[in-house]
Amino acid sequence: MKQETPFDTVLIANRGEIALRILRACRQLSLKAVCVYSEADRGAPYLELADEAVCIGPAAASASYLNTDALLMAAEATGAGAIHPGYGFLSENAAFADAIAASGRVFIGPSADCIRTMGDKIAAKRAMISSGVPCVPGPDDALIGSADDIAAVAGDIGFPVIIKAAGGGGGRGMRIVRSASELVGAVELTRKEAARFFGDPTIYMEKFLDRPRHVEIQVICDKHGNAVWLGDRDCSLQRRHQKVIEEAPAPGIDRALIAQIGELCAGACRNIGYSGAGTFEFLYEDGAFYFIEMNTRVQVEHPVTEMVTGTDIVAEQIRVALGHELSIRQEDVVCEGHSLECRINAEDPFNFQPRPGRVTRLALPGGPGIRVDTHLVQGYEVPASYDSMIAKVISHGRTRSEAIERMRGALRQLKIEGPASNGPLHASLLEDPGFIVGGVDIHHLERLLKERGSV
Amino acid sequence: MKQETPFDTVLIANRGEIALRILRACRQLSLKAVCVYSEADRGAPYLELADEAVCIGPAAASASYLNTDALLMAAEATGAGAIHPGYGFLSENAAFADAIAASGRVFIGPSADCIRTMGDKIAAKRAMISSGVPCVPGPDDALIGSADDIAAVAGDIGFPVIIKAAGGGGGRGMRIVRSASELVGAVELTRKEAARFFGDPTIYMEKFLDRPRHVEIQVICDKHGNAVWLGDRDCSLQRRHQKVIEEAPAPGIDRALIAQIGELCAGACRNIGYSGAGTFEFLYEDGAFYFIEMNTRVQVEHPVTEMVTGTDIVAEQIRVALGHELSIRQEDVVCEGHSLECRINAEDPFNFQPRPGRVTRLALPGGPGIRVDTHLVQGYEVPASYDSMIAKVISHGRTRSEAIERMRGALRQLKIEGPASNGPLHASLLEDPGFIVGGVDIHHLERLLKERGSV
Repeated sequence: MKQETPFDTVLIANRGEIALRILRACRQLSLKAVCVYSEADRGAPYLELADEAVCIGPAAASASYLNTDALLMAAEATGAGAIHPGYGFLSENAAFADAIAASGRVFIGPSADCIRTMGDKIAAKRAMISSGVPCVPGPDDALIGSADDIAAVAGDIGFPVIIKAAGGGGGRGMRIVRSASELVGAVELTRKEAARFFGDPTIYMEKFLDRPRHVEIQVICDKHGNAVWLGDRDCSLQRRHQKVIEEAPAPGIDRALIAQIGELCAGACRNIGYSGAGTFEFLYEDGAFYFIEMNTRVQVEHPVTEMVTGTDIVAEQIRVALGHELSIRQEDVVCEGHSLECRINAEDPFNFQPRPGRVTRLALPGGPGIRVDTHLVQGYEVPASYDSMIAKVISHGRTRSEAIERMRGALRQLKIEGPASNGPLHASLLEDPGFIVGGVDIHHLERLLKERGSV
Repeated sequence: MKQETPFDTVLIANRGEIALRILRACRQLSLKAVCVYSEADRGAPYLELADEAVCIGPAAASASYLNTDALLMAAEATGAGAIHPGYGFLSENAAFADAIAASGRVFIGPSADCIRTMGDKIAAKRAMISSGVPCVPGPDDALIGSADDIAAVAGDIGFPVIIKAAGGGGGRGMRIVRSASELVGAVELTRKEAARFFGDPTIYMEKFLDRPRHVEIQVICDKHGNAVWLGDRDCSLQRRHQKVIEEAPAPGIDRALIAQIGELCAGACRNIGYSGAGTFEFLYEDGAFYFIEMNTRVQVEHPVTEMVTGTDIVAEQIRVALGHELSIRQEDVVCEGHSLECRINAEDPFNFQPRPGRVTRLALPGGPGIRVDTHLVQGYEVPASYDSMIAKVISHGRTRSEAIERMRGALRQLKIEGPASNGPLHASLLEDPGFIVGGVDIHHLERLLKERGSV
């Protein structure tokens, strides 16, 4: 007997590898899957695998993948009772979640209220503080008042400080200040940028950490008050705030400390009534964790957590949205071995310029401990209109060094001709002594590139 | 500093998915890989991934993949210092191993002597008995003498008995006898078949087990006397002695008993000086194991062991051939979760007739816990000349039921158009109550097919 469920069809409001990833999860759960596509993605190979595929507008994301009306019309036309937003695009847009709910459908993610709270960095910080999650030193309040007031705040924190837009993210709308003399100018400039980029001039100030690592905690929660943390990831290898290689677990950090932070994150989720998958991002320096933001969606790097925990995070998101209880309890979460993910971009490996194009030859790695998440097939034209990430190569080993070794072997198997690929960058990073030891800070990659004379 | 090694180039004396699998292992180890191909396999997509590809003759396997001279010439021409035979073809041919050694190259597998001993079922049984490995009741000797002598042997064992060719295998050259009256005729017929099929009329007699399961132990051994067993597999779902679905570990068998058998197998390997990968095949009935044969090569179903143990069996075979010590000790072997493999054949799922052809559309499964070993790409022409297996879909889950669930999801993702595929057979087997409970005997699938009216 099939049970009554709130939906049997999921509309995937995204494109590329994550659209295919969500489609696979729908197949796992025997749900129908509707893909949408912009005119630039017409003919993308994963569309053929969907039960239905609907064109939602022109190439410009604002007219298609960010177009709530078009997405709701597609859901209406195909009988989709739920919408999975993937990552990027509308995935952290509270108004989108509201619109879906208003149309009588299920948004596969947390409530709009949770998205809204976590999208406001000041509100998020307050929520964390009230749950005991450690935050970066600095007041949990907007930066207002006279130049003297602001100088007093900075004096309390101690230089260097960082000024951030409350609505910012992805490395935009922030400014480091190293001395009192720069303070007033920096505050003004950041406030203006915040208003321009994020429609909200609210800013706040925090202690600036000089050489932190980026370590994050994956959580998954149901609508019955259950919240589980699924281990940690280290995503410190970044270029211009874009993650390049991620791994799980974070090397060289006391596991008892991670467990303590993980429990606090799960507790914070219970306190705010969070449901679905989410990620608590932290800076880690000198043995201490500092919350920076929560991503209220599935992350690009979720596979490394799947590899070490054996969970299917996307399927679990959908199950939770169906109203099911979590299929795992905290005591069942065991992290086994080590996993790495290399983000393969269609870009020049030296100057990082996007280099899309038609895939004239494709050979993907495989074998034990290797997973590839990609929508590429030979003959596919990588469009120029979107993010340049075209594949994720994921490795798993019983130890970190085995995971690295397997990733090296996988990259030797990877052949993409037509578009450029940053495979050679990854291959060289896997030989970097700092990376091999593990635990590099978030500026490591940019220092490396500078030494090499790359951009 | 690169160490001096006995070879830097491996010739892969095989085709199809296992050729690609071995090629991937070579990439893992930074070794050059030479592929060979028959005229029927010219243009096969994996050939492009090799460092060199050499044509070794016409489609008929006897003229190409079984042609020792052509293979050695290809090794000579390409500077290959080692040959990996894969499975099937020349993989258990002692003369081939001798010829490789005589040419100054390394055969990636055990010594010719070990192959010879294990290829002779009577010699193999004696070796097992002397190592304490439990065997099927019956004398470890050729069946000779008068009709009365033979009747006495059968009387000692007790009916039913089975008469087998010493050089046989794969279900050929064997005959079940249920009463004394059939005995003489059966012995004569089997002797004749043994002479005709295997060039050796030697036969022997054993107790026939009525409803056994097929359970096997994977071993891997180096040239320094180290032997490790890598857990067990259940391969009871068979049709005409061909395995259809395999899994690791075998469900519902006392793990302490398996460990005891595993230790005996590893001990037998040390006693006979075995090196490389190997499989001890057992019948299992009423809580007892009975050795039937040892396969002195990598098995088709090796990935399920890789999934639960985290080892790379093919890379380990090559490392051992390079003279390295095993990279794992017995105490490091931990079996985690459960894994299934479905063999996808280009055949009609109802009447099992081969149905090769050009792949006009291909979508392979993926995502967490799914691995696919295949050489297929869209546009590839599956030749009619060889075995019909075209892909292996492998799933892993934290539990057996999760592995089954993931395999169901994977089969829903699998699309192969052009050739026929037995995907629908697998999908129905995964719903079979007997299989779901686990522990069916080796006749289960044929009984099922009979009930359904399939051949």
